[in-house]
Amino acid sequence: MPEDLRTRIGVIAEKSGFVPNVFRALAWRPAELRAFLDYHDALMEKSDGLSKAERELIVVATSGANNCTYCVVAHGAILRLRMKDTEIADRVATNPWRAELSPRERAIVDLALVLATDPAYFGDDELDKARAAGLTDDEIWDIGAITAFFAMSNRLAHMSALQPNPEFFLLGRLPRQ
Amino acid sequence: MPEDLRTRIGVIAEKSGFVPNVFRALAWRPAELRAFLDYHDALMEKSDGLSKAERELIVVATSGANNCTYCVVAHGAILRLRMKDTEIADRVATNPWRAELSPRERAIVDLALVLATDPAYFGDDELDKARAAGLTDDEIWDIGAITAFFAMSNRLAHMSALQPNPEFFLLGRLPRQ
Amino acid sequence: MPEDLRTRIGVIAEKSGFVPNVFRALAWRPAELRAFLDYHDALMEKSDGLSKAERELIVVATSGANNCTYCVVAHGAILRLRMKDTEIADRVATNPWRAELSPRERAIVDLALVLATDPAYFGDDELDKARAAGLTDDEIWDIGAITAFFAMSNRLAHMSALQPNPEFFLLGRLPRQ
Amino acid sequence: MPEDLRTRIGVIAEKSGFVPNVFRALAWRPAELRAFLDYHDALMEKSDGLSKAERELIVVATSGANNCTYCVVAHGAILRLRMKDTEIADRVATNPWRAELSPRERAIVDLALVLATDPAYFGDDELDKARAAGLTDDEIWDIGAITAFFAMSNRLAHMSALQPNPEFFLLGRLPRQ
Amino acid sequence: MPEDLRTRIGVIAEKSGFVPNVFRALAWRPAELRAFLDYHDALMEKSDGLSKAERELIVVATSGANNCTYCVVAHGAILRLRMKDTEIADRVATNPWRAELSPRERAIVDLALVLATDPAYFGDDELDKARAAGLTDDEIWDIGAITAFFAMSNRLAHMSALQPNPEFFLLGRLPRQ
Amino acid sequence: MPEDLRTRIGVIAEKSGFVPNVFRALAWRPAELRAFLDYHDALMEKSDGLSKAERELIVVATSGANNCTYCVVAHGAILRLRMKDTEIADRVATNPWRAELSPRERAIVDLALVLATDPAYFGDDELDKARAAGLTDDEIWDIGAITAFFAMSNRLAHMSALQPNPEFFLLGRLPRQ
Repeated sequence: MPEDLRTRIGVIAEKSGFVPNVFRALAWRPAELRAFLDYHDALMEKSDGLSKAERELIVVATSGANNCTYCVVAHGAILRLRMKDTEIADRVATNPWRAELSPRERAIVDLALVLATDPAYFGDDELDKARAAGLTDDEIWDIGAITAFFAMSNRLAHMSALQPNPEFFLLGRLPRQ
Repeated sequence: MPEDLRTRIGVIAEKSGFVPNVFRALAWRPAELRAFLDYHDALMEKSDGLSKAERELIVVATSGANNCTYCVVAHGAILRLRMKDTEIADRVATNPWRAELSPRERAIVDLALVLATDPAYFGDDELDKARAAGLTDDEIWDIGAITAFFAMSNRLAHMSALQPNPEFFLLGRLPRQ
Repeated sequence: MPEDLRTRIGVIAEKSGFVPNVFRALAWRPAELRAFLDYHDALMEKSDGLSKAERELIVVATSGANNCTYCVVAHGAILRLRMKDTEIADRVATNPWRAELSPRERAIVDLALVLATDPAYFGDDELDKARAAGLTDDEIWDIGAITAFFAMSNRLAHMSALQPNPEFFLLGRLPRQ
Repeated sequence: MPEDLRTRIGVIAEKSGFVPNVFRALAWRPAELRAFLDYHDALMEKSDGLSKAERELIVVATSGANNCTYCVVAHGAILRLRMKDTEIADRVATNPWRAELSPRERAIVDLALVLATDPAYFGDDELDKARAAGLTDDEIWDIGAITAFFAMSNRLAHMSALQPNPEFFLLGRLPRQ
Repeated sequence: MPEDLRTRIGVIAEKSGFVPNVFRALAWRPAELRAFLDYHDALMEKSDGLSKAERELIVVATSGANNCTYCVVAHGAILRLRMKDTEIADRVATNPWRAELSPRERAIVDLALVLATDPAYFGDDELDKARAAGLTDDEIWDIGAITAFFAMSNRLAHMSALQPNPEFFLLGRLPRQ
Repeated sequence: MPEDLRTRIGVIAEKSGFVPNVFRALAWRPAELRAFLDYHDALMEKSDGLSKAERELIVVATSGANNCTYCVVAHGAILRLRMKDTEIADRVATNPWRAELSPRERAIVDLALVLATDPAYFGDDELDKARAAGLTDDEIWDIGAITAFFAMSNRLAHMSALQPNPEFFLLGRLPRQ
């Protein structure tokens, strides 16, 4: 693995305690992994507008709708940690359309789900509903871009039958962690 | 609650340490709860033919396909305990169509999924595949009947927005439990 | 067949003039047949709230949506008799979404169809529409529970390729019967 | 109504004993009705290759798949008469995919259903299966053309909320008629 | 080919400069081709109510939704010529649900799409929306009948793997033609 | 726009004669545009294994299945140029499932379509078929990764109602260009 990627993955591994399998799966294609990481960080490592927890909520909801085991389990763990809620990931991943959420979260998830599963029907109605719920155009872009990025990630995981690291299954499930 | 139901629920509560919410939800209709319990026990409390773990596998797979949060979380817990596998429930519930399973388990789940989601197309092809995988006609009936029973249970949970007890989320997730 | 079941089926046979095939299909599993009958009677043999005709309307509409030949033909016959309407069953079974009905009947059928075919999307919108049409919470439960029970029954019929008794096809079709 | 149409409908009315509602619905557009009748007769009034009963079987199967009440009820009646079978129409209309049929009939219906409901996927596989079942290219054209014609007819009926004449519901249901 | 058809096709060939392949495909069944032409002309060669351009818009939108290559390419060419718009056909065929159109055109296309792809759900809601957009009942009939006719045409093209004439691909794409 | 992006877009503009609208749409988010370009180039600017024409074929097929107007029109133009075929883009975009292709191209497109539209069902069967058609594991990865990348791109275009530049509609349509 090229030095720059080794370093970046090293930082993640240190923070998490392990190397998430998605990086191993992409590592044989360094240019793709580098672009993947850059895109991911541009969308997920911001906290103005959408909170980091809300960003993970989009990932778990759309990955649930796409039946993506890796992303549901791995990002479900991050969502639990970010929301400090041991139940949210299972509820959102299993039924993203009707999981009980705050009105703002519901508007975020509803917008994301249309784009994830019915992109041909995405249009002004969806944007109007999102704005009526108080979402700014900057936030709407982030919701759409995160949904689009994980439409890609989910398919990368499906095509490589990517398995979640064992650590992810339990992370964030114990009351204090 | 009539005495007989109080007793039955009491036994379950003692074994689990809590009263699963499905019983609270159905309790105001004692005749329905009684029939529900009888039918459930007739299908789930047997262990000839399909093992009890295999029966729970059907429940988790079809409830995942039906996006039923209560059944995925509650029966996911039981599946973890019965299979002594901390990952199986999340993998099967998220993508029942492609979760890695033994050939016998895959045949069981494939048969169940067609009946759960495309009942109009269920026919001789499905039965032939199941028999080719070594399933007996008695086992096939059980797979179909459990799938049918949870087609009902899932919809009872959806119609009452049934929430899983907090205990279910963690049950069976710790290596030794 | 155990004595209690023999008696119950005998009563039905006497009333109908024949033994509906569903009972023959389930008879080799007495505990399942007993629970099936108990559940069925708890939901279908009441007449407070929903009328018996309305209960059959739910069965025919959702069985039509599920392409279940046994239930469409058998319960279509009962619906014709209960509604004293020779056309209603064919119209509702063929296109449950747009068959012409009274506003109350349409509200009942619309609620049932969402739960039957799109359970993951069933939520407050459906409940609000049902209440706006004047349905009580007790009636809504019955609509949901009947829909759920026949989601099971339809699948039992599909898995066993259950054929309707010849008698059902004509029953209730002649103006005076 | 122009004289030529009046005469044609008159012949039909005399044969049936009533004027099927589809002709009333189209009568205000004589050029369309004339073309409709010409096309219909070119496809349905032949008996070389497919029998007339087999032609009606295609109509009932695809109209069932399209949930078209008028065509299911009206052509269901004709199918019962042509097949001298009081049950066939209800069985095929309710579940065209799995109704029990002879191998030749099943091949006819399977070909028709793909074209009716998934035209974008219709291709060489479907043609190969039809030929393997002994269908000639002339018969395959008829199956496809009848399916296509009723894809139109079904939609004309849906758009005009066309109701079947009361006579159709009972026609062909009594053992000797 | 019978004389009358030879003459009609000759007129079309003279106007277009070539014989559209659909006529070659249907020519071996003269009665069907004659009815096809009659029906087509009755619906497409009128200009009261819907304009001829609007009629082609319906064809391209519904043929796009049905993934029909022949009709998209051939009628796309005509639509470009009639609308004097080099982009409209590609935009409408690729995403008929969200292509930017005038409110009247959008109402026309929305009505057509429901009937084309979800005929069982076509009902009063669709008619009310169309009327609210200013469409007359005569225009609504035309929209529905054209949609229905091309539900047939699309399937005739699918079943015969009909290829568009090379001329159609470029027609109407150059600014002045 | 940061200098590096200005330079990269400049090179593209010089080669094409215009700035493709996708770059304008993403330009206000430089980090996202940079990662988008990097990822795109890593997948599309290679020619070992899959040819560049085959890479565009995947884009047009999956963008057609996703009803993405921008990608169909823009990449359709590139596909025409790369394949020196004025018809291929319209045929593949309109019906990617059945457009006539060489066996190798059909295998490429079939693999891509499952991942694009049914990712949950992507599994060993798809991989086996691709390998049986002679595709290497390196090529399969590229097919999957390009499909995944355009699952993202399509959704970015849908969410921003991205319009194709007028130039794309005609590019590659004239016999010699």
